[in-house]
Amino acid sequence: MARPSSPLLSREKIGRAAIGMIDDGGELKIQPLAKELGVSLSSIYHHVDGREGVIHAMREVLSAEYALNIPDQGSWKEDLKAKMDSLWRLYSDHPRVMIHLLGVTVEEPRTLTLYESLIDVLVSAGVPETELLTTIEVLDAFAFGAALDALSPQVIFSPESEDSRLTKLIENHPAGAERNHLLYRRGLDFIIAGIEAGIPQSQPLTARTRSNR
Amino acid sequence: MARPSSPLLSREKIGRAAIGMIDDGGELKIQPLAKELGVSLSSIYHHVDGREGVIHAMREVLSAEYALNIPDQGSWKEDLKAKMDSLWRLYSDHPRVMIHLLGVTVEEPRTLTLYESLIDVLVSAGVPETELLTTIEVLDAFAFGAALDALSPQVIFSPESEDSRLTKLIENHPAGAERNHLLYRRGLDFIIAGIEAGIPQSQPLTARTRSNR
Repeated sequence: MARPSSPLLSREKIGRAAIGMIDDGGELKIQPLAKELGVSLSSIYHHVDGREGVIHAMREVLSAEYALNIPDQGSWKEDLKAKMDSLWRLYSDHPRVMIHLLGVTVEEPRTLTLYESLIDVLVSAGVPETELLTTIEVLDAFAFGAALDALSPQVIFSPESEDSRLTKLIENHPAGAERNHLLYRRGLDFIIAGIEAGIPQSQPLTARTRSNR
Repeated sequence: MARPSSPLLSREKIGRAAIGMIDDGGELKIQPLAKELGVSLSSIYHHVDGREGVIHAMREVLSAEYALNIPDQGSWKEDLKAKMDSLWRLYSDHPRVMIHLLGVTVEEPRTLTLYESLIDVLVSAGVPETELLTTIEVLDAFAFGAALDALSPQVIFSPESEDSRLTKLIENHPAGAERNHLLYRRGLDFIIAGIEAGIPQSQPLTARTRSNR
């Protein structure tokens, strides 16, 4: 059976190819992307609006791939952790891509749904309305910073002195992915403790959490 | 008086020129850097060891420029905030540079001193030894994520529906630098609350803090 001489192009194919190139350390440039896809530049521009359009296409692909809209099933802390874990997996699987996504307004419905669902959890926790967006931004910035930390070299600190406190602490510290995972877990716990401390304590927490579910 | 035909090259000059290029959105490449400095490639290689050497030179310049080693003068929380503010200013003034620094082992004495001094503050707060390095990594990752957030567009979210909760929250939310600064402050408060919650409560905090100073 005859196969088409060039693959059928789509926003999704463009997004996937761009993600692959950037994950591999490449830059975001349309010409090499067209070459990679085996199509002409004008074919790409038929589907996406330039460089920024490629970024939107990448975000669409990633938002669909990561199950970001996890159903609520536990306490607000458990729900928040489950949603953040999913966001963090997205970020830490594709840290270089995220650096590009950062600069472009989020307008993809699936991505917006993720942030809406994080807000829902914070509302159920009793976070005051005026604090909701800043709290989401803190969680997002931390997840992003923790994910980028995964690009760190295996040896992060190399003190000259063998007597320094840092040298001794590093000896007993995990490295690589284990270190990165530990910092993400601990940081999220810290932030959740801080969010909890900022919730107005007018009713016992358990009662409020239940009444809002 | 005759001026030298080419400026005297140094690691510092190379570092400063590289920082300027990357801050302006350029890539980290030696050839354009040599052109910018008006010197030959071999002159640069005489001072720094390739691309990674330029990264070390940039870190030396930035570590010297930001007064990272602030004398302790208050409670551990105040001291920690003062040191973190300095780190955050460094990161948020040069977010693109930081993305490059991230991948290269820290061996610059001044930068190591900053981390050592952060560890000192956490020790004085009573953070258990096994938690020191992870706590530093959490603080660092958050400061980095918050600084990169400054590269966000003026409009971060653009929901399609005017009725969505996100749309309403955005209306009353600060934008740009004010938004970014607010998220940094709040996130640092959250993390400090989390650190405090993890400190073993065997003695009253104030007594322990004093006895360790």
